Amino acid sequence: MSKDDKKKIYKPRPISGYPEWLPELRRTEQLMLDKIRSVYESYGYCNIETPAVEELEVIAAKGEDVDKEIYVLERLQADPDDKKEARLALHFDQTVPFARYVAMNFNELIFPFKRYQMQKVWRGERPQMGRMREFYQCDIDVINVDALPLSFDAEVAAICYEALEALNIGRVQLRISNRKILSGLLESMDIQDPAPVTRIIDKMEKIGEDEVRKLLSEEGLQDSQVSDIIALAQCKDLSKLKAANETMREGIEELSFVMEQLSHLPDDAAIADLSIVRGLDYYTGTVYETQLLDVPEFTGSVCSGGRYDDLAGSYINKKLPGVGISIGFSRLFDVLSQLGNIQPSAKSPAHVLMVLPSEDKRKLASDTARAIRSRGYNVELYHAPQKIKKQMAYAEKKGIPFVWFPPFEDGGVHEVKCMETGTQTGADPDSWTPEQK
Amino acid sequence: MSKDDKKKIYKPRPISGYPEWLPELRRTEQLMLDKIRSVYESYGYCNIETPAVEELEVIAAKGEDVDKEIYVLERLQADPDDKKEARLALHFDQTVPFARYVAMNFNELIFPFKRYQMQKVWRGERPQMGRMREFYQCDIDVINVDALPLSFDAEVAAICYEALEALNIGRVQLRISNRKILSGLLESMDIQDPAPVTRIIDKMEKIGEDEVRKLLSEEGLQDSQVSDIIALAQCKDLSKLKAANETMREGIEELSFVMEQLSHLPDDAAIADLSIVRGLDYYTGTVYETQLLDVPEFTGSVCSGGRYDDLAGSYINKKLPGVGISIGFSRLFDVLSQLGNIQPSAKSPAHVLMVLPSEDKRKLASDTARAIRSRGYNVELYHAPQKIKKQMAYAEKKGIPFVWFPPFEDGGVHEVKCMETGTQTGADPDSWTPEQK
Repeated sequence: MSKDDKKKIYKPRPISGYPEWLPELRRTEQLMLDKIRSVYESYGYCNIETPAVEELEVIAAKGEDVDKEIYVLERLQADPDDKKEARLALHFDQTVPFARYVAMNFNELIFPFKRYQMQKVWRGERPQMGRMREFYQCDIDVINVDALPLSFDAEVAAICYEALEALNIGRVQLRISNRKILSGLLESMDIQDPAPVTRIIDKMEKIGEDEVRKLLSEEGLQDSQVSDIIALAQCKDLSKLKAANETMREGIEELSFVMEQLSHLPDDAAIADLSIVRGLDYYTGTVYETQLLDVPEFTGSVCSGGRYDDLAGSYINKKLPGVGISIGFSRLFDVLSQLGNIQPSAKSPAHVLMVLPSEDKRKLASDTARAIRSRGYNVELYHAPQKIKKQMAYAEKKGIPFVWFPPFEDGGVHEVKCMETGTQTGADPDSWTPEQK
Repeated sequence: MSKDDKKKIYKPRPISGYPEWLPELRRTEQLMLDKIRSVYESYGYCNIETPAVEELEVIAAKGEDVDKEIYVLERLQADPDDKKEARLALHFDQTVPFARYVAMNFNELIFPFKRYQMQKVWRGERPQMGRMREFYQCDIDVINVDALPLSFDAEVAAICYEALEALNIGRVQLRISNRKILSGLLESMDIQDPAPVTRIIDKMEKIGEDEVRKLLSEEGLQDSQVSDIIALAQCKDLSKLKAANETMREGIEELSFVMEQLSHLPDDAAIADLSIVRGLDYYTGTVYETQLLDVPEFTGSVCSGGRYDDLAGSYINKKLPGVGISIGFSRLFDVLSQLGNIQPSAKSPAHVLMVLPSEDKRKLASDTARAIRSRGYNVELYHAPQKIKKQMAYAEKKGIPFVWFPPFEDGGVHEVKCMETGTQTGADPDSWTPEQK
């Protein structure tokens, strides 16, 4: 194409809410996702991957107030036959697809069914709101038929703690509660609809005790009730709680068991925090939130979840209680990389850049690269017999840690240069390993 | 929820064209994708991941006849503000997003830019056609500014061969041609529009020589021309080709160079096949297709691609020639698993099932599991102190290869049973490794 050609160029813009990274940051993201996967699998949880798309009816059957956030698909060139088909929509979370998957494959799965799922989800938010519209979630859940042992409430918490720890993002703190405790207390006070109270307590950390006190009074609660509720939410020592009824006693017992099962974690890694209630009505027992103690700028919970009574009742006539946690990965990654708490990787996954000394040494260089690759290292072969200085500069720019010089003359030796130390030594392609630092 | 509750149940159905696997097959898929990624990275290619979504205008700018296959997104509860925003569509391949990405990040990338991309793409096909509407592609491309060394045409072929080899799906054969050879011949015959002839030659394997001869005659070609074209397409020995002009000479030279660079591959792994032309007008030099020699049922090409002159001219005023290949992963996986050529993995990624002898041994079992995990093995802790027989049956059903018995009595020893051989031996959680077979 000659430079004089008038081309029609459409200059693309970033789409708000759809994050995308340069290769060096994408590599960091990939390695972090690998670590989460590896921790999830180390506990024997299997992976499932569902299509990005569900029938709109499936999403609607699950109910809940999500209509506004759903993207539906339309064929650009729709034809009359399309009408016969169910409307399709992008999934907005991984719980609906998980529930639908379990219902469809119920007879093929082994229970308790332990699964993790790490996919993108889509929310049709208005772009003005600055929210993410496409993001990764890393979910881990276990469900069982009819009843699920409480030990799993501790296991999924331990797994998520370990996964976040592996990301090297500073101290992580799991805050755990059990909804039966507050529900029990409210029951004992004869409060008919616990939802408004729960929602107010949920805001405690954000709006402070005085505001909570005010809002609870506005709900018509007596001063002594308000004080009891606030005291409960602020209680840090489970042994000091007095159960007002059976529900509350159950909640305290369950939470105590879960905390005891987590006693192998470092101090402050997991605390009982009765102010945690989670907004969703969905949860019935244990609930989790997670804070990054070293990143005060990160507001909200990195990973949250809880115990639920019935996963898939909308799709199958079985009772499937479960417990699960979800890491909101993309938001975590986005915030931490903006704060500089996450470092970009090298621009190439290569451990070694193989120098191409001259065109007639191409076979030698290529064979040498292959020999080193066969031993598990990533080797990029430089593409043209350019000046050595230029080839070195390329390795430098891409952050490739070693540069390999095959013999420039027949009978010469292989040499390898460590870019960080500048040391250059003889090396054998069939036995070389990167030196330890 | 009591069993008497009348629940409204929506029974979900599979959506045609959207594949989904049971955990054991998903694990196989995951491990295959890991292998492809690992081979791509072993050559120093970096990963990029673009959003599932592009502006419709970006897709339209690239042109080509793809309108019918595009899914556009609509917010289920659209509001007037939506009109201000560009229409969004799911990407139908990874080339358009790659081109758009390069244009947007041109100044941040290092050239030659070597990237791989392994994502799902979506095609809004009519479901009746039985085609996949969501599938993985595993693309690898290298582009450069103004000119790109021909050695990359061999490199990407070698990489794709190695990636497919790693999948253990039988013998793989790359069939390589160079479009300049046929174009040159047609030029020398003064054929003005080579497209119809190219399309006919492309069908040679499917429709046979006689039919090709007939169709070419119908295009108005003389008998001698038809014979020359067919002879070219059937030629298996490049050294016997005579160049009719400069274009053809260039094509023969380029193809010979690429084949020579691939001479390290096993016999029959890569052959020059001048009947390969690829349908897309996009390609300008080297073109590739790939056959599975041991799976005759698999029709069409597993992985295809070629050299192009200009990747991103629709979005940026730079000339960016490149070469790339794409593995059509999901179709490959779908066909091979239906044929039984791909085996499901175990239903759990666990290497070891940790027996829970009794509730009071939970801490011991849990600590032991953690010790083995810390040494890189995946360990599932059984969830309830049920009969040992039941716990063993669970390991059996999930295909977990080892069952670990922590000491049932104080002062007892750890033992581990290999499920395949039935051997049970004493073991130390801090030093155990799965025995070699």
